Amino acid sequence: MKRYDIAIIGTGPAGLEAALTAQARNKSLLLIGPAGLSAKVTKAGSVRNYLGLPNTSGAAMQAAFLEHLESAGIRITDGQARNIYAMGDYFAIQTGDADSMFEAETLILATGLPLSKSLPGEDRLLGRGVSYCATCDAALYRGKKTAVIGYTPKEEDEADFLSELAGEVLYFPQYGGDVRTAPAVKVIREKPAEILGETSVRILKTDGGEYEVDGIFILRETIAPDKLMPGLELEGSHVKVGPQMETNIPGCFAAGDITGPPYQYIKAAGQGNVAALSAVGFLTAKQKQ
Amino acid sequence: MKRYDIAIIGTGPAGLEAALTAQARNKSLLLIGPAGLSAKVTKAGSVRNYLGLPNTSGAAMQAAFLEHLESAGIRITDGQARNIYAMGDYFAIQTGDADSMFEAETLILATGLPLSKSLPGEDRLLGRGVSYCATCDAALYRGKKTAVIGYTPKEEDEADFLSELAGEVLYFPQYGGDVRTAPAVKVIREKPAEILGETSVRILKTDGGEYEVDGIFILRETIAPDKLMPGLELEGSHVKVGPQMETNIPGCFAAGDITGPPYQYIKAAGQGNVAALSAVGFLTAKQKQ
Repeated sequence: MKRYDIAIIGTGPAGLEAALTAQARNKSLLLIGPAGLSAKVTKAGSVRNYLGLPNTSGAAMQAAFLEHLESAGIRITDGQARNIYAMGDYFAIQTGDADSMFEAETLILATGLPLSKSLPGEDRLLGRGVSYCATCDAALYRGKKTAVIGYTPKEEDEADFLSELAGEVLYFPQYGGDVRTAPAVKVIREKPAEILGETSVRILKTDGGEYEVDGIFILRETIAPDKLMPGLELEGSHVKVGPQMETNIPGCFAAGDITGPPYQYIKAAGQGNVAALSAVGFLTAKQKQ
Repeated sequence: MKRYDIAIIGTGPAGLEAALTAQARNKSLLLIGPAGLSAKVTKAGSVRNYLGLPNTSGAAMQAAFLEHLESAGIRITDGQARNIYAMGDYFAIQTGDADSMFEAETLILATGLPLSKSLPGEDRLLGRGVSYCATCDAALYRGKKTAVIGYTPKEEDEADFLSELAGEVLYFPQYGGDVRTAPAVKVIREKPAEILGETSVRILKTDGGEYEVDGIFILRETIAPDKLMPGLELEGSHVKVGPQMETNIPGCFAAGDITGPPYQYIKAAGQGNVAALSAVGFLTAKQKQ
């Protein structure tokens, strides 16, 4: 398997700037995130203070950023990192897609602000029926009852995929608008409230009822950083970083909203730059050993 | 005298972004620096990794930044801050021009990398014959012998001005090309080596000779931060800052190359953003007292 110099998780300003800087330093890089860029970019209203782009809209910023990536020859690997493992001297990254394992010497986390809080019971039962990746864990639920809580329409694909294996798939969309899932998927428009179970998941409780299930897939746009990568030190809900954007895990850096306020575009980009240069420095030091 | 909410010193990416952010937060702001922007911007070669401005040149970046300032209605006060004093609950800023005093509640230092080292004897004799501002201190040298060490052609005006008051002005240009000074100014193309004197300046020693003088004006493009503002805590030659870009002086923040490496455009802009938001937070907290 190809091992990249730098894997960058997230396609907001921090991740994109990290990619440009890594590229400028001739490092091989993997950039994982929505190919149309993060919602923070695309859904922006009017941004007045991104120096160089006067009064830009989200759409204009998206166009400028995508043009920049293209001119630099940087390709986005469309998808979402669902699990990341610090393997000692490299990182293994699992996305929700087929061919979903990647490896990299260093890692830059730029997945943005963790937006939703955990459900009651979620943290306790993670790995014991609670999963953040249908593609990764579907095989465990062959013939069983599952629930999928989807925070964006793109999770409908995950529910469909799961329905090919699982005995039953209940899909709880947490967004408005149409839902288009496979016939085998049962759509329930309710808001999850709690996950019950002693040693493993037993019941999903919602504002409308209780559902007996063996597994619950919670598919958010952003996964809480310490769940995405076990062992990562947080400060509140943010990743704890030093002045060079280093985390507590050697070779792992973080940038942008994930590191805490202020939540600003140009500040995120600036941190992405620093994180990439720190990753380059880490690689250089490693080669000298 | 009008007291601004935020004074921003420097017109590189850090200062400009700080100004945009301060403006977006409805603060009155003073932005002091070269009106054509800092040399770091204008003299840039090809910059590949300023996200949003693909493969930009210094000239293109300058144009984009000036357009942004204009669209935001921000005016640059052309000049160089030569002395800044922390007055307790405000800051006094002296530039080298007439009408040269300004006041502000908070301060953001974004003057870039201190490029030249002190001359031997300079630090010891600062304020005792060594000055960084001819306009400020010329009156002290009426009829006396002075030397002016100019690091950019714009300092020729300072030498000319000084020659109207001082008995003798020796001008040591530290740059190539033509020198156009008033007839009373004697131009000497030598490199300063040391400043001698027990209790006050007595001799300027160069690589070509020794000159008896009463005062020496050292006019660099960038003044070392702790000389620009007495009491400012450094780390090496950089201003020591915390994660919110705060310095050791309450109400004083710093951003960009002045805070240390990496010396990158987008990182400087990101820090300018954080510094401005911190200054806004400081003003808010002050109003609540």
